[in-house]
Amino acid sequence: MPYAENNGTKIFYDIHGQGTPIVFLHPWTTNGYIWYYQIFPFARTNHVIAIDHRGHGRSDKPKSGYSIQEHARDVKAVLDAEKIDRAVLVGNSIGGMIAMQFTLDNPGRVLGQVILSSGTGLGEGMPKEAAAAFKNDFAGTFSALLEGAVSAKSKRERPEILEVMKSHFQVQSNFPKHVFDSSMADPNGVFGWNIKNQLSSIRTPTIVIAGAEDNATPVAANKFLADNIPGAKLSVVKDVGHFHQLEKPLEFNAALKEFVAGLR
Amino acid sequence: MPYAENNGTKIFYDIHGQGTPIVFLHPWTTNGYIWYYQIFPFARTNHVIAIDHRGHGRSDKPKSGYSIQEHARDVKAVLDAEKIDRAVLVGNSIGGMIAMQFTLDNPGRVLGQVILSSGTGLGEGMPKEAAAAFKNDFAGTFSALLEGAVSAKSKRERPEILEVMKSHFQVQSNFPKHVFDSSMADPNGVFGWNIKNQLSSIRTPTIVIAGAEDNATPVAANKFLADNIPGAKLSVVKDVGHFHQLEKPLEFNAALKEFVAGLR
Repeated sequence: MPYAENNGTKIFYDIHGQGTPIVFLHPWTTNGYIWYYQIFPFARTNHVIAIDHRGHGRSDKPKSGYSIQEHARDVKAVLDAEKIDRAVLVGNSIGGMIAMQFTLDNPGRVLGQVILSSGTGLGEGMPKEAAAAFKNDFAGTFSALLEGAVSAKSKRERPEILEVMKSHFQVQSNFPKHVFDSSMADPNGVFGWNIKNQLSSIRTPTIVIAGAEDNATPVAANKFLADNIPGAKLSVVKDVGHFHQLEKPLEFNAALKEFVAGLR
Repeated sequence: MPYAENNGTKIFYDIHGQGTPIVFLHPWTTNGYIWYYQIFPFARTNHVIAIDHRGHGRSDKPKSGYSIQEHARDVKAVLDAEKIDRAVLVGNSIGGMIAMQFTLDNPGRVLGQVILSSGTGLGEGMPKEAAAAFKNDFAGTFSALLEGAVSAKSKRERPEILEVMKSHFQVQSNFPKHVFDSSMADPNGVFGWNIKNQLSSIRTPTIVIAGAEDNATPVAANKFLADNIPGAKLSVVKDVGHFHQLEKPLEFNAALKEFVAGLR
């Protein structure tokens, strides 16, 4: 059964393989499909778990409960259901936030974390106009944001990435409007959540990967994480935007493989 | 609930959107993830269903029952469960065989079919040595076959496609050895199934798409289908092997969109 339950909310996940567990946490509005080029290659040597966050894909989509803390409890529910004691977390964007929150809440259960194109306190620097635009025209504003979240090279050579990113939130059964509204309204939602004063207490091996051409969570936002998580390493990748795992899948896989191997 | 049942065998499917239904049927050893760049873009305007065939991915994997006819009954179970009367079928490789078999068995329920890199009677021309190699070293032989199933351009520019294709059958939870064995042994399995004498009775609008560089189901195998299905059109695509939907996703999507639009 590919579902775990957190207080009545069903969380979908896909699971394959055996070995050191790796949990993949996708970006906002997307779903576990984004890890296609990781799930099966890594499942040859690892216990791979790809979760659909609540409000996304095949998971339940309750009216509220979209704090990053609640998302992290969903991850815990999945690990508990699978009796996985400790895992490597790989989180992209909101997935990275969920990974960091999970690590803060359950430090003993994380072997290491790969934070891919993420940040904290993302709403802090957001101009009022941008926040208003988001509320008034979510689809239009988010589409424009995505234009700046894929590299020039990826747009040229892999135009399907921008196309699929724009489609996720236009499909109500994948990401309905109420999830957007509730995430925006929650003080600990995707834009409100802020752990900048807690980063220094993270003791888990961490690499932060930033795309050089990512305007959604720019290099500076990722550098801030790496600078403040003790021992964290920053890697800035060329010709990549917000989605390293799709824009240069084998390069991302090599970095992840090296990181996991180094944990033992 | 993303499962339908055919005589106790649970078939997993993902479903999104509204409009003319489109059912996606994946190649042997893979799963529904292969349609990532189609599912969400098309779900904006269509009722999209992506099935994991029995023996694959998240569907049940019984010991036997891997005839193409049985796979086609699984598709019927999904359409019945979703109360979908008529749909466009899009099938790649074994998925194309399943589509054609479904059309033969349920002509009134198919609006049109896109047969992508497929064939019939594939085992007929297979040399004894190849058949023996398959049985003795499935993983090695299938890997070699896949090398010839992705175009030179795709290998250069999208090396992750070959990597993910090689990984599917190396992950037992996705495609276990007994499914391979049973499919090979079944007289109507992936290599034994042969409807060459029934193609002329298909009356459903059909396009056949072949990759110019596909050595798995070469252009000739696809041309045979197009030549023998009344009114079928053949399209041979450049720089593409067996996986048009991943090798050139937007080009494939444009062809599919045009085909679906032309059905009304």
